[in-house]
Amino acid sequence: MTTTNPSKATALRTHTCGELNASHAGQTVTLAGWNDVKRNHGGVLFINLRDLYGVTQVVAGPESPVFKTAEEAKSEYVLRVTGKVTLRPGTNANKNMPTGEIEIEASEITVLNPSQPLPFELSEHAGVSEETRLKYRFLDLRMPRMARNMVLRSRLSQVVRNYLYGLDFNEVETPLLTRSTPEGARDFVVPSRNKAGEFYALPQSPQQFKQVLMMSGMDRYFQLARNFRDEELRSDRQPEHTQIDMEMSFVNEQDVARVVEGLMKAVFAHIGDEISAPFPELEYSDVMLKYGIDKPDLRYALEIKDCSEIFKTSGFKVFSETLAGGGVVRAIKGEKAAAFSRGDMDKLTDLVKSRGAKGLVWLRFKEGKWESPTLKFMTEPELSGLKTLLDVNEGDAVFLAADKPEVAAPCLGALRLELIARLKPAPAKKWAFLWVRHFPLLEKDAESGAWTFTHNPFTAPLPGEEGKLDTDPGNVLSCQYDLVLNGVELGSGSVRNHSRPMQEKIFGLMGYDKEQVQRRFGMIVNAMDFGAPPHGGIGIGYDRLIGIICGTDSIRDVIAFPKTTSGSCLMSEAPSILDEKQLKELHLKITED
Amino acid sequence: MTTTNPSKATALRTHTCGELNASHAGQTVTLAGWNDVKRNHGGVLFINLRDLYGVTQVVAGPESPVFKTAEEAKSEYVLRVTGKVTLRPGTNANKNMPTGEIEIEASEITVLNPSQPLPFELSEHAGVSEETRLKYRFLDLRMPRMARNMVLRSRLSQVVRNYLYGLDFNEVETPLLTRSTPEGARDFVVPSRNKAGEFYALPQSPQQFKQVLMMSGMDRYFQLARNFRDEELRSDRQPEHTQIDMEMSFVNEQDVARVVEGLMKAVFAHIGDEISAPFPELEYSDVMLKYGIDKPDLRYALEIKDCSEIFKTSGFKVFSETLAGGGVVRAIKGEKAAAFSRGDMDKLTDLVKSRGAKGLVWLRFKEGKWESPTLKFMTEPELSGLKTLLDVNEGDAVFLAADKPEVAAPCLGALRLELIARLKPAPAKKWAFLWVRHFPLLEKDAESGAWTFTHNPFTAPLPGEEGKLDTDPGNVLSCQYDLVLNGVELGSGSVRNHSRPMQEKIFGLMGYDKEQVQRRFGMIVNAMDFGAPPHGGIGIGYDRLIGIICGTDSIRDVIAFPKTTSGSCLMSEAPSILDEKQLKELHLKITED
Repeated sequence: MTTTNPSKATALRTHTCGELNASHAGQTVTLAGWNDVKRNHGGVLFINLRDLYGVTQVVAGPESPVFKTAEEAKSEYVLRVTGKVTLRPGTNANKNMPTGEIEIEASEITVLNPSQPLPFELSEHAGVSEETRLKYRFLDLRMPRMARNMVLRSRLSQVVRNYLYGLDFNEVETPLLTRSTPEGARDFVVPSRNKAGEFYALPQSPQQFKQVLMMSGMDRYFQLARNFRDEELRSDRQPEHTQIDMEMSFVNEQDVARVVEGLMKAVFAHIGDEISAPFPELEYSDVMLKYGIDKPDLRYALEIKDCSEIFKTSGFKVFSETLAGGGVVRAIKGEKAAAFSRGDMDKLTDLVKSRGAKGLVWLRFKEGKWESPTLKFMTEPELSGLKTLLDVNEGDAVFLAADKPEVAAPCLGALRLELIARLKPAPAKKWAFLWVRHFPLLEKDAESGAWTFTHNPFTAPLPGEEGKLDTDPGNVLSCQYDLVLNGVELGSGSVRNHSRPMQEKIFGLMGYDKEQVQRRFGMIVNAMDFGAPPHGGIGIGYDRLIGIICGTDSIRDVIAFPKTTSGSCLMSEAPSILDEKQLKELHLKITED
Repeated sequence: MTTTNPSKATALRTHTCGELNASHAGQTVTLAGWNDVKRNHGGVLFINLRDLYGVTQVVAGPESPVFKTAEEAKSEYVLRVTGKVTLRPGTNANKNMPTGEIEIEASEITVLNPSQPLPFELSEHAGVSEETRLKYRFLDLRMPRMARNMVLRSRLSQVVRNYLYGLDFNEVETPLLTRSTPEGARDFVVPSRNKAGEFYALPQSPQQFKQVLMMSGMDRYFQLARNFRDEELRSDRQPEHTQIDMEMSFVNEQDVARVVEGLMKAVFAHIGDEISAPFPELEYSDVMLKYGIDKPDLRYALEIKDCSEIFKTSGFKVFSETLAGGGVVRAIKGEKAAAFSRGDMDKLTDLVKSRGAKGLVWLRFKEGKWESPTLKFMTEPELSGLKTLLDVNEGDAVFLAADKPEVAAPCLGALRLELIARLKPAPAKKWAFLWVRHFPLLEKDAESGAWTFTHNPFTAPLPGEEGKLDTDPGNVLSCQYDLVLNGVELGSGSVRNHSRPMQEKIFGLMGYDKEQVQRRFGMIVNAMDFGAPPHGGIGIGYDRLIGIICGTDSIRDVIAFPKTTSGSCLMSEAPSILDEKQLKELHLKITED
């Protein structure tokens, strides 16, 4: 962490613990910070005094008037030290420490606050449970890695904002006490005291408000917005999370993409990485075919190939019957995977079965020959076709799945990720961005069998696809796009419906009649009546972005005060019970079930 | 609104409606925007096309292929216009319009979206009720004044952030789902689905988290933070509001003041106003004496004077008995207020009586002579003493209140504001900032009679005052300060307790035993055990600041989607009822009372 501003002098310090160097030699300075490490070398005390900006060595010899205080100062005591900056003798200089050329000969030490012994050592390697870290988050955040994460998160938000301000976006704060609307997940709600039995909802996203802002002529909106979802939590989910939320008027998909690409370039430039734009784009249908997942990690080239053509006259019943029934045969190559044992192959087979496949066909190519339990069912032309299509070389293995396309894709997608995990191919690049475009507008709800939106009820059909709404709604492509980074869905957005008849037609397909549309989405459809401009936007997960940049698997490491997976804050002990008076004022009673 | 970035070209426009001028003459351009005004001059149609950035005149002659579309376009239709930029003939140029030198000869007009007739005219002078404006907020925000407010609010937040980043502050997002703590106002709460009967609270401020951040070594924190209070609303209150929240380690009151003054200089420089710093500082006790209110509007010099000395031997019973009982006689001058009628004087008397005064003594100085119903009770030396003390001149009036100091102060404070409102003195400056310092640490709770904090339970006593905690708690001065601008309390902050024993002693005076402190404030006192640094900070009301700068009395005019005074959003119709399933999941039942 570098000190960009030299004037952080306050009543209690003249400098920070990160800024002194040889040029300050001879000056009398006052520092304040924490006793990070203390050593006694032949009767001389050395204290590493730490603050956010660095560490400075403080020295007190046995004759020093401050020796006694220095001796009594325990770990994490808050100290104020006045003394002379002196050059360390050449051999003692520490080149690995920005302040390593100097030390402070203390003439005055004040204990500003003592500390109890810590419940754990402030070290990455102390093996502390996350539960303990979260309970004592104020100590956990003193760890350099965590402090760096917080500072980087802050600084990158400045980069994000200044980039968007530079494009004349305005940040508009949308309400957090708003109305419950069915947008997929469960809402957190807030009981109203004034209106018995009524509730506000915390927003799952500012979606409707940002669209209304476009209708109010705001032209270009953004917000680092707090979103809330009352869902079961996982390591990459929190009940509240932050999103870089954007919306623009008079745009198409490409306009939004260019703005986002510029934003990502700016963010990654800040950490010293140059990324190239425009990002690759893939159709949703292609991405499912090639990678079996809608957020492929394109750091790895590995692709799924369709072999239906190769096996169209196959004598292997598993293949021929699948193909006859409208299914597909698809394959993926595992480079150097011929070394996999029979046991490995069984595990991979179990993996694809757990995703719904009936089985997995595998072939190893070893010493110029194929080997496989199912080799006998394959002809020479089929094997040679496979070898060519997948560019199979000595030591590789091939995995085939025969199934309905909607089963083959996720099975081979999961297999692809497992192969990457096991074979650890060298990534082709550090940061692999990708646009996935043109998701289907609608899909059948698994439970009710009715049409529902795949991503967002406000997404517009792709121009030219509107006609299919009447004849073939399940195959209407949409203006919905996802931004993927290194296999993580970083953002999701679309060009929206701006015409009320079109929006109502889509709601109609989802089973909402006019009255229900008015009740559930009244604000936005009413606004469409009065000159709504064409518009589109995106929401980018800020916690995820920072998590990827900081190289952590858990977004809890980039959130100052996160919740556990059961939704608790172990430090503040939220949530907690209310007293009867508060409940009564809110017209509420707790039920036992 | 000026266009700072020229490249807002998108798929649907080459330029905005605010950027074309004579230098573009001859170019073919495409604009998109709203039909703001349409006129027909001798068969030629003129459309003022509007977007956020400005208005451009579009022309379609009777022979034009686009005439028919132009003719059919009604008010607020969204249009896309392609045409040639042409210079307006000299006499037709409009110097008051940034694009007034040119117009667009339309060769193509597309209706991107029609509009229903608006429910009200988009004009400041249309006399629309606020209720209608809030219901159709998406139209209200199209008004130039409202759009300007939103853009300025956005841009000033950038100024705020960049200033603070420049001083190495980091913005840290603190949780919104947190724990209910007694900090004055009522909390909004959020029922937990996972933990039956438990609730999160929305924060009234990030107070405890920002202090914990200091204890975690964050050094300098800020956040444009959303705060929530479930209180009765007024025009300057909203259930959610935004605060520039800051905290710094190793500081005293003056360090915080310098940072805030620099921030205000930066903000006002952005609107072209230079303000001088450091700001004046007044002790709380002085400010109550001189202005009768803790947030005086110092644009006006008018001061309250103590006349107890003048009347110490008064024969006027009202005065002598008050003084004998430990009360005071204080006076304020109304310049040119001798013109006030007897009726006016009665109204002013009613005003101070409504604030608890027993009455109001007034004297007019007209044609060199005093006149007053109570003149007969005053001696010549008293009158001349009054004249000198208050610098009374021909045509002035003097108002006196005799009462206990704690009654006299607010009564004359209210009178001072009323005199300013009636006499409309010229303000001495446009922006009058003031620090009010050293509020009492504790006061008696009006209901319970117990000691409670005056501003903030975490405020430290003023150094040197600690001893009085044991002997005279009501007179302990604190490190609490308020920032006042033009008579509005803009911010409030303090240097905090960093020592657990001191914090517990103060909680003890408020009647909390150790167990209660642990239960209610466990997070912060626990953190104090492990090396909490001295720290202080402030929270500045961002809505209020922007309201003052935009010159509006209602903060609703600077919030995109505000609530009414009954806490409703008329546009989204929040709050609303939940369905039974949701309530059941939350383990809640609505009670009838």
